[in-house]
Amino acid sequence: MNTRFYNARILKLKGLDIANEMFEVIEGEVWVEGNRITHVGRVEDGKESPKFDKEIDAEGNLLMPGFKNAHTHSPMTFLRSYADDMPLHDWLHKQVFPMEAKLTGEDIYHLSKLANLEYLTSGITSNLDMYYHPEEVARASVDMGFRTVINGSVTNFTGSVEDNIKYLKENFDKLNSYNDLISFKIGFHAEYTCSGELLEAIADLANELKEPVYAHSSETQSEVDDCIKRYGKTPTKYFDSIGMYNYGGGAYHCVFVTEEDLDIMLRKNVSIVHNPSSNLKLASGIAKVQRMVDLGINLAIGTDGPASNNALDMFREMWLTTALQKVSEKNAAAVDADKVLYMATKGGAMAMGLSDVDTLEVGKLADIIMIDLNQPNMQPINNITKNIVYSGSKQNVKLTMVDGKILYKDNEFFVNADPKEIYAKANEIIKEKKRA
Amino acid sequence: MNTRFYNARILKLKGLDIANEMFEVIEGEVWVEGNRITHVGRVEDGKESPKFDKEIDAEGNLLMPGFKNAHTHSPMTFLRSYADDMPLHDWLHKQVFPMEAKLTGEDIYHLSKLANLEYLTSGITSNLDMYYHPEEVARASVDMGFRTVINGSVTNFTGSVEDNIKYLKENFDKLNSYNDLISFKIGFHAEYTCSGELLEAIADLANELKEPVYAHSSETQSEVDDCIKRYGKTPTKYFDSIGMYNYGGGAYHCVFVTEEDLDIMLRKNVSIVHNPSSNLKLASGIAKVQRMVDLGINLAIGTDGPASNNALDMFREMWLTTALQKVSEKNAAAVDADKVLYMATKGGAMAMGLSDVDTLEVGKLADIIMIDLNQPNMQPINNITKNIVYSGSKQNVKLTMVDGKILYKDNEFFVNADPKEIYAKANEIIKEKKRA
Repeated sequence: MNTRFYNARILKLKGLDIANEMFEVIEGEVWVEGNRITHVGRVEDGKESPKFDKEIDAEGNLLMPGFKNAHTHSPMTFLRSYADDMPLHDWLHKQVFPMEAKLTGEDIYHLSKLANLEYLTSGITSNLDMYYHPEEVARASVDMGFRTVINGSVTNFTGSVEDNIKYLKENFDKLNSYNDLISFKIGFHAEYTCSGELLEAIADLANELKEPVYAHSSETQSEVDDCIKRYGKTPTKYFDSIGMYNYGGGAYHCVFVTEEDLDIMLRKNVSIVHNPSSNLKLASGIAKVQRMVDLGINLAIGTDGPASNNALDMFREMWLTTALQKVSEKNAAAVDADKVLYMATKGGAMAMGLSDVDTLEVGKLADIIMIDLNQPNMQPINNITKNIVYSGSKQNVKLTMVDGKILYKDNEFFVNADPKEIYAKANEIIKEKKRA
Repeated sequence: MNTRFYNARILKLKGLDIANEMFEVIEGEVWVEGNRITHVGRVEDGKESPKFDKEIDAEGNLLMPGFKNAHTHSPMTFLRSYADDMPLHDWLHKQVFPMEAKLTGEDIYHLSKLANLEYLTSGITSNLDMYYHPEEVARASVDMGFRTVINGSVTNFTGSVEDNIKYLKENFDKLNSYNDLISFKIGFHAEYTCSGELLEAIADLANELKEPVYAHSSETQSEVDDCIKRYGKTPTKYFDSIGMYNYGGGAYHCVFVTEEDLDIMLRKNVSIVHNPSSNLKLASGIAKVQRMVDLGINLAIGTDGPASNNALDMFREMWLTTALQKVSEKNAAAVDADKVLYMATKGGAMAMGLSDVDTLEVGKLADIIMIDLNQPNMQPINNITKNIVYSGSKQNVKLTMVDGKILYKDNEFFVNADPKEIYAKANEIIKEKKRA
């Protein structure tokens, strides 16, 4: 399938440095052949073009790389608006864990598909997911045509240390060769749900495989305090001390991190995934994103799961990323639109190990979205990146293409599934779990 | 024009007390005859119906009262993404005021229409606007079929005390008899832009007309500090001391208010309009909404103008209203979805003096929106009010009806104007002002 977009504005990354103005908007065409981008920009007279199956008039709208949702738990859709208005600990132990224990692999498959639909409506083209039954999360994404990186989420409750390591190894081998849309990363839930023995075994595995490690980290003050009581160190410092980050990694939330933690993450190439809505909703706090930007740490943005946000909407998270920094730093100039857009695209791709879907350039995979500028919230066009981050919404997502295929266009889904059946299934699952 | 909605879910207000669960969802029909609601709920066998011009299958989606945007500056659309990333004082004096000085009445008319389009996409059916040339804001709303309350916005710079009082009186008389969609309220910009003499004259006018008074109040700490230096009192206490609130009023922002201020507002029937995005973006702070709820003060939500937000989107403000309280109160149970939905509908209507558009009941004016529940972010349906506030977005607004007329449906506008011409006009105006 070859697609030509013409009459387009195109968002181009100018520089890689997060401290500078990073984007420019050019005019022209984008060509997609198969799942790759083969042309970006003005078409020179006489340039030979492939035979296109589809030619789309962008009508001056903006083509840009799809958003990367760098931390989520897709199958938790069934708990949306079910467990709310509770602090993290009670929410996890009284509402989330007991309901999750009842989920089957088949449930997880269907609930993931619901999340995938929602990602498409928000221009999200790939996610970094963390859940049980990663093979079912992967199957859902492949069936929907969606790109997913999954990180193993072991804890003391998912088995013995040996079982957990075996599980991570097996999924690493199996899912990294399962489908081009899928990759698998070593990971664990969090320091407070894993024994020191388990964490050391995971670090050993990471060193053996030369792989980065992903986990929730420093989300609440009490998590950090408890870790210091246990190991005399913050979670980041403790992880570093056992060699967890020798090949980099990803740390979700990081609301309560020290300067020493940030220094470790910078040196060890650990990306921080910022989850502003979830951090507010669970009353955790506001992460020091401006400081992280200043230090040059790679930053990404995630929605977190639909039970703790509850929307899987990158526009909401982008707005919060800038707005919360402005108020918490008492500086209206903090973390501007370009920096946020970088985090939501290139920064996310880097955090997820997806170097091929980060920008619109010839040779990259075609994970592309079209932003409708012909909407009142995008007018006038004083500054397109500011419009996207400061006034954009899901309603502006006119088209979402993953791996060269249009999966969503003008509010319609083009996936191998009937959305109404997916909704019915999700309602059925929550009804059944409540009864059980 | 008579319209029948069938197969609908309908959001009903159960109780008026903001401290309790306030909404229920019933099933049935809503009938609109002319601009009034004539039926809500199940239709008894044999009930006589009028002749309908339009019959709409709601497909199980939710009908609810439109959102009330209780504080905004519609014509500031031209400055969207133009003046950003600056604190309130510099932003006003270096960017906003110099550009605003160049606007003509005709400009204001066109820029207001752009805002009206955006309101419709977010399910907003009425606004409380504050701007120069209120007659042009009114004309735009009437031409678009939109409901607008305007409050006079005088300052030391808009004329002498006598001129300002004359201006308020004349607009009060003229705009309150101009069109059923329009009303006008006494008001001023803020304490720091008005002399004591002017404020006393406004208070006298309010007492003469037995009318409430509306203004920005206690938005920043320095505003409050300066007022205390000038009058030995906070703005609220000072206003009260000169009789400003004898017939109630509305106070915008209220980020820095004392317990004594809140007590005055409760006793004097002053509504507080919360503007969370603007308060973040200008690095002002987070208002104590939970405390205001506990005291029983009438609360409403506003987007503020498109230069200080930059979106005119009630879903964004609703999410922030709950999420910011959870984190600032360190209480994940703070200000729940029902309370937020009440503020965005009934609370707003009360603040705006629009007692006829607050709920879906027989006899009320038909300012109605339809929320699309057949979207992934609204599934499963564990709790509809939570879904709206915690995961809803503009994308869920399927239909917006103002005064019995459908002005927006399935992403299309049905107004007496071509949206593309409005966009072109807004771009032309900003281009011209930059040059001038």
